[in-house]
Amino acid sequence: MSAFERIILDHGSGGRASQRLIADIFFSHLGNSILLTQDDAALLEIEGRIAMSTDTFTVDPLFFPGGDIGALSVHGTANDLAMLGAAPLYLSCGFILEEGLPLKTLEAVVSSMGRAAGQGGLKIVTGDTKVVPKGAVDKLFINTTGIGRIMVPDPPKGDRAAEGDAILVSGTLGDHGLAVMTKREGLEFKSPVVSDAASLHPLTLDLISRIPEIHVLRDPTRGGLATTLNEIAQQSEKEFLIREKDVPVDPAVREGCSFLGLDALYLANEGKCICILPETRAGEALQIMRGHPLGQGAALIGRVTAGQPGRVILETELGGRRFLSMLEGEQLPRIC
Amino acid sequence: MSAFERIILDHGSGGRASQRLIADIFFSHLGNSILLTQDDAALLEIEGRIAMSTDTFTVDPLFFPGGDIGALSVHGTANDLAMLGAAPLYLSCGFILEEGLPLKTLEAVVSSMGRAAGQGGLKIVTGDTKVVPKGAVDKLFINTTGIGRIMVPDPPKGDRAAEGDAILVSGTLGDHGLAVMTKREGLEFKSPVVSDAASLHPLTLDLISRIPEIHVLRDPTRGGLATTLNEIAQQSEKEFLIREKDVPVDPAVREGCSFLGLDALYLANEGKCICILPETRAGEALQIMRGHPLGQGAALIGRVTAGQPGRVILETELGGRRFLSMLEGEQLPRIC
Repeated sequence: MSAFERIILDHGSGGRASQRLIADIFFSHLGNSILLTQDDAALLEIEGRIAMSTDTFTVDPLFFPGGDIGALSVHGTANDLAMLGAAPLYLSCGFILEEGLPLKTLEAVVSSMGRAAGQGGLKIVTGDTKVVPKGAVDKLFINTTGIGRIMVPDPPKGDRAAEGDAILVSGTLGDHGLAVMTKREGLEFKSPVVSDAASLHPLTLDLISRIPEIHVLRDPTRGGLATTLNEIAQQSEKEFLIREKDVPVDPAVREGCSFLGLDALYLANEGKCICILPETRAGEALQIMRGHPLGQGAALIGRVTAGQPGRVILETELGGRRFLSMLEGEQLPRIC
Repeated sequence: MSAFERIILDHGSGGRASQRLIADIFFSHLGNSILLTQDDAALLEIEGRIAMSTDTFTVDPLFFPGGDIGALSVHGTANDLAMLGAAPLYLSCGFILEEGLPLKTLEAVVSSMGRAAGQGGLKIVTGDTKVVPKGAVDKLFINTTGIGRIMVPDPPKGDRAAEGDAILVSGTLGDHGLAVMTKREGLEFKSPVVSDAASLHPLTLDLISRIPEIHVLRDPTRGGLATTLNEIAQQSEKEFLIREKDVPVDPAVREGCSFLGLDALYLANEGKCICILPETRAGEALQIMRGHPLGQGAALIGRVTAGQPGRVILETELGGRRFLSMLEGEQLPRIC
């Protein structure tokens, strides 16, 4: 493969050029015995109940501080499975490529995807590649769909938040959204802002195996912490009280948000989770999180209260109270 | 929803506008108890071995004679599962929408998707919607990923074609590719050409339950019959002999191909399958196919021979022989 080779429509024809692309790039970076059978579908063996989740990635730019669209496409779907108390096992990937895309770009993305999958113990078992004429898509989009094995009899779900529960987060908020934004806009801050993109199941599997009473796990991606808390408050028909001073935000993110007029509570995260559980187990959960590389900045940020169902209240740093509403508009398109 | 409403970036934010879009369009046409839980992942119960397959749909135009991108996105993935001897059960869907897309267009696509899934007994259990700025995608692309339950101990696979096997097809070839092409180019022929897009599992499940000895099932989509036969010949390391006069092609497709300089054997099909099985069972398989609405035009088109591994030979209508090679270039981009 020459450094100047580019994607052509033939690569999506299903014919010889497709075969070469699949062998040279996909099989060499993602290959495993299931993928290599080259049948229309992958044959899998899973015991017990399974979780299934899908996500499409359109992030712009493709490469940003702390990650790229390839790794993100693995982490994002692995995390959606992890939040249901599942061990992510298998991923499918669907690529849409723009005619003219440099093959080197595709290869960098696919190799990053392979590394992220390998680190998380995930296998990419089936895939599809479409090539569309120049202008019909912006460079490269990826869908991943994952299946995993549910590891607890009573999986954490959005409707299980109960009065008196503690609300924890596994670390600082807003890092991913701001990292993508600053790269896209060519901005620079004193301290670099780096995406938190990571697969969280090593942390969540540890948590749920030691504390099966966890009621809710959810990763605050699009719409950020504020929007995700509103979703859970609606699903569970409870009121949440969040203390602003306890919500961890990295100083560089705080500075960037202040400069750009953004609110870190509405920025996407790709390596953090919300954990809602009985208050009596909150200390233990925090200890587990903080002892793990993925949860070092974990904090208790609030609690589930007997108030108006579906409402999230923020106790501000000055001691006042206001509604923390769901994201209304779109702060930042194409951050995942 | 007004007839003039359009997709805006807010619809992809994860916030309030996303919630409304999901409720108004996705839940109303695709809703089922699993999808409506609104968690990050769907919780599924499947016994036994499962098949998983993914496909992305970028067809242009979105609506064509005999189908549209919504129905196609269900049929295409259901068929990939069916070819592994599976009963398709669950689908995920990932939408990429262009800012400015009329909501009515999206609703027409999603409702067609819902009907196709319902007719095939499939549930759409989890989904994702991304909105990208105008120009970053051409109108609307869909990924579907499906899982199904494997129904036979020894599933049909591409590497199982054996010397002496008969090669059948379930009906006429080239209909889908030519239907999309003529619509896109604004062409008209004396007889209309209509896509064959359909979910084949009602036929394939019937076939494999009555003839478990079937070695290979494969749907000849991109690259058409010729390319797909080459793939199977390579996987199984056998030679195939195909008799051109026995390959069923609809007269309208024949006429269109002749006019446009296309070869029906290289055109995509979305509702046909190749079936390779021991010759002794070929008559029975043909009878089953022909007794089914999806297989009325079934035909025996050739056999697996002891020749050079990976080669497909075409015995032409005039009695000569030539190699039937894999698709080299791209005849028709964006036909699925």
